[in-house]
Amino acid sequence: MAWGQAGVQTLPWYVVGSQVLGVACIVMTGVWMGHYGGGYAWDGSRLQFNVHPLCMVMGLVFLYGDGVLVYRVFRNESKRSVKILHALIHMMALVISIVGLVAVFDYHNKNNFSNMQSLHSWCGMLTFVLFFLQWLLGLSFFLFPWASATMRTWYLPLHAFFGLVLLATSVATSLMGITEVIFSSRPPNPGAEALANILGLLLVCFVVLVGYLATKEEFRRPPNPEEEALSVHFNTLNEGSDPSSP
Amino acid sequence: MAWGQAGVQTLPWYVVGSQVLGVACIVMTGVWMGHYGGGYAWDGSRLQFNVHPLCMVMGLVFLYGDGVLVYRVFRNESKRSVKILHALIHMMALVISIVGLVAVFDYHNKNNFSNMQSLHSWCGMLTFVLFFLQWLLGLSFFLFPWASATMRTWYLPLHAFFGLVLLATSVATSLMGITEVIFSSRPPNPGAEALANILGLLLVCFVVLVGYLATKEEFRRPPNPEEEALSVHFNTLNEGSDPSSP
Repeated sequence: MAWGQAGVQTLPWYVVGSQVLGVACIVMTGVWMGHYGGGYAWDGSRLQFNVHPLCMVMGLVFLYGDGVLVYRVFRNESKRSVKILHALIHMMALVISIVGLVAVFDYHNKNNFSNMQSLHSWCGMLTFVLFFLQWLLGLSFFLFPWASATMRTWYLPLHAFFGLVLLATSVATSLMGITEVIFSSRPPNPGAEALANILGLLLVCFVVLVGYLATKEEFRRPPNPEEEALSVHFNTLNEGSDPSSP
Repeated sequence: MAWGQAGVQTLPWYVVGSQVLGVACIVMTGVWMGHYGGGYAWDGSRLQFNVHPLCMVMGLVFLYGDGVLVYRVFRNESKRSVKILHALIHMMALVISIVGLVAVFDYHNKNNFSNMQSLHSWCGMLTFVLFFLQWLLGLSFFLFPWASATMRTWYLPLHAFFGLVLLATSVATSLMGITEVIFSSRPPNPGAEALANILGLLLVCFVVLVGYLATKEEFRRPPNPEEEALSVHFNTLNEGSDPSSP
């Protein structure tokens, strides 16, 4: 118990660390594309492509990760409020990702570049589509009253597992995107390469920290007996686990 | 309980699926480098580079993943035997990875290519070094009698978490490696690109399946009261969790 208490006291520091990392990733992507990439525009030029990495890192990495973290940050607020916040942040993540996707598809089309050719594009599209599906499933299972308690209990661990999987594939896709930009830049720019490599490592650190916060036993929401009694949402079948806290 | 039982009955199918995926990844890497890449040699030529992807997929992806899975496959064998098997498979993974690393460094050096320049190399080296450290720590905490029960209880969840993190970064590094090879191949070869993209997706499926098997509550080793009583290895501080099963 003493260990568990000590664990929870460190939670705010991990959260602060994750936010510093996440903001650093956005700033570095912004500087990379803004300074080394020449800036931003929406005119079909390379400057329109630059919108793509920035939107994807903001939406499908940072906001996605923060959407996961609300269950750890707001540990004592009502479950329903936190669920709504979770859904809203992920909706923002989806909207910003769509802007990022439109930017690159439109850039490709206007320049007669082929779409969906690279492994980056395959993994990225798969991640985006599954994230959207997962968002719809989350909404219909947990926020609307359609699903039975048994169905919710069945889906919750899958929702949490695939939520983290998709955050990881999102970062893996970013790493491939960084590799694509560096390997197709002529002439090579050592400054841009160093910045991009450090950005890659920070993206990895962000997803690892979010994953740690989301899975560490001591950081889970404390079970709220009153809420449990009032709610038929989560009847746990396994003693000792707390399926009300994804 | 009925759910838990039903869950465990599906375990062998997931394990078979993971092995089919893992072997498919090795075969596809072998065909990619063997057929489209021109084959294998140890002569400082491009054919020596081809040894690198094959060794890394065999060692740091397939064997690494299978080393994780022994705790799920051998659920009723003695804990000590399974721990030794876990350490041995990961030692094999390390040895094969070292061959793969020597292949690429030696190829770079003989051709005056710079080492450790790309994000792929940074992430790959970090993964390898941390995997080696994690293996040494695992050995000294869990197989040798040096660490106290408290230290083991403290380290076990970290060992399990970072074990999966490093498997994920290993696969993410492979995806960057695939991207590097495709983006530096001139002229482009659509057949090789399609094969490499499918290989990338199969690598992602492999790591997701291993992660699912390793984290699903119902698939954990059943607690063995006799073993627990005889062993001072794992005194759990949290009720309901079973820290004897990483």
